[in-house]
Amino acid sequence: MNFEFTVLGTGSATPTLTRNPSAYLLTVDNEYFLIDCGEATQYRLQEQKIRHTRMRHVFISHLHGDHYFGLVGLLSSLSLNRRTEDMTIVGPRGLAEILTIQFKHSESILNFKVNFIETEPEKAQLVLDHPLITVETIPLQHRIPCCGFLFKEKQPKRKIIKEKLPENFPIPYIHQLKNGQDVTDELTGKVYLCSDFTTEPTAPKSFAYCSDTAYDEQKIEQIRGVDTLFHEATFAENELQRAIKTNHSTAKQAATIAQKSNAKQLIIGHYSSRYDDLSGHLTEAQSVFKNTKLAIEGDTYKI
Amino acid sequence: MNFEFTVLGTGSATPTLTRNPSAYLLTVDNEYFLIDCGEATQYRLQEQKIRHTRMRHVFISHLHGDHYFGLVGLLSSLSLNRRTEDMTIVGPRGLAEILTIQFKHSESILNFKVNFIETEPEKAQLVLDHPLITVETIPLQHRIPCCGFLFKEKQPKRKIIKEKLPENFPIPYIHQLKNGQDVTDELTGKVYLCSDFTTEPTAPKSFAYCSDTAYDEQKIEQIRGVDTLFHEATFAENELQRAIKTNHSTAKQAATIAQKSNAKQLIIGHYSSRYDDLSGHLTEAQSVFKNTKLAIEGDTYKI
Repeated sequence: MNFEFTVLGTGSATPTLTRNPSAYLLTVDNEYFLIDCGEATQYRLQEQKIRHTRMRHVFISHLHGDHYFGLVGLLSSLSLNRRTEDMTIVGPRGLAEILTIQFKHSESILNFKVNFIETEPEKAQLVLDHPLITVETIPLQHRIPCCGFLFKEKQPKRKIIKEKLPENFPIPYIHQLKNGQDVTDELTGKVYLCSDFTTEPTAPKSFAYCSDTAYDEQKIEQIRGVDTLFHEATFAENELQRAIKTNHSTAKQAATIAQKSNAKQLIIGHYSSRYDDLSGHLTEAQSVFKNTKLAIEGDTYKI
Repeated sequence: MNFEFTVLGTGSATPTLTRNPSAYLLTVDNEYFLIDCGEATQYRLQEQKIRHTRMRHVFISHLHGDHYFGLVGLLSSLSLNRRTEDMTIVGPRGLAEILTIQFKHSESILNFKVNFIETEPEKAQLVLDHPLITVETIPLQHRIPCCGFLFKEKQPKRKIIKEKLPENFPIPYIHQLKNGQDVTDELTGKVYLCSDFTTEPTAPKSFAYCSDTAYDEQKIEQIRGVDTLFHEATFAENELQRAIKTNHSTAKQAATIAQKSNAKQLIIGHYSSRYDDLSGHLTEAQSVFKNTKLAIEGDTYKI
């Protein structure tokens, strides 16, 4: 199953012409899950040629503008573009009110239904049980209520060994085998053992998104062993005091969380506008956690 | 006095990668007046290297998103960039509420004071009396309450004939002459006639901004003789029925308003995303009103 992460915006609060505000796209199989939606994210999605009919879920971490000011524009444009599929928006208290009041004043009725799921950022909670994945919130420590999101692939199905299957083997039987069940042929009574015709599925993968947050070890237990951790690294260690003061993290702190939670891969982002060159962030993080990558706008990362 | 108009966004509701949503900057002397503020306008201002300390007034025509979704982000960023100058926002009922609720949820307190002036789009009203200009609303006919703005330069001062002035002529006396007053020298009693030392000032200029609007002759009396008319031309005549249905105008209709109001120059913009090539708009408009220009993003037009 396709499970990857595309970076649309790596900036932080202060706007620059070289970085877009926070927005990320998780691709699971053929479905898109948008994570945060800073101003002008709809243009980033257009650039990536994302088919919006396949994007049915948006996750908003918190109500600082660099994480959600683009949402009202995105929804308006989807409606203008005649979208009819439901959209589920997972976000904090207040988001529904902010969107609703704007549609009220523009006298707009969206062409599609919006389902709001309100997060309670102070506790981990299951916010989505989707056929492909589950999503839990990750409580984060920031200046206003804020949570990350832990995306866990559901147990993938067993893999069929095609060469071993009899010719014209009925499709419902194949599904039974994929689901780990033995099959008894209704006509002949012959038994096909799942273990003979399938191999073990790949292990389910997981992805944790943690932005914005101070250095905080409380989340480690929840994200332990995650395949890919995205962790904000607004600052480098030279601005540790500013990171503490503003409830953000340094690259080294992000790497420490990755190392302590035994993540397999770390991607850092949400860079302060004071840094043009990010090689310091990378070196600093890799000194603690080797498999660190910089989030680069437009790039896609396998989870 | 410098009096010019810079185009930041020429798109209409449906977003494209080739046009930005509505935003225009009027420059009067050294002051900037922002007119409409679609999504991502703050980046357009950065590209134009606009000194935000000189921008103290924002005018919002109506609450369709392509005309104001960028305002909350602009204000947030100005505050992050430590602006302290007051900002006056002229816009329709609802705008203050929309902004306030977003700052409440982000727990943001702006570094500067915002003065809201609420328009009453159904009638022409004086909304700003500034040392350099006055601004009146222009009632427009659209799907939701909407008004344009008529910017009128105040009577410019008389021009000093420098060669005629005595050496070391006191500056307060110069100001008296510029204001049209004769001067009596306190020491010598000598009288300096204003008519001897100054020439007539240039005629005060005016600029009318009309977007979004159906074809509507009611505004003609108010804007008669305007130096520059910006009028929306969402469609060309091939989409006249759509223009009527959506309360927008065609290029030809915009030109008809310019011609009937005896404007000196017409600039058209707010183009529908269905038009890549705008030469049809221009030809059509010029067939009715010769001195028509297309609004081009990044370009500045003398008024």
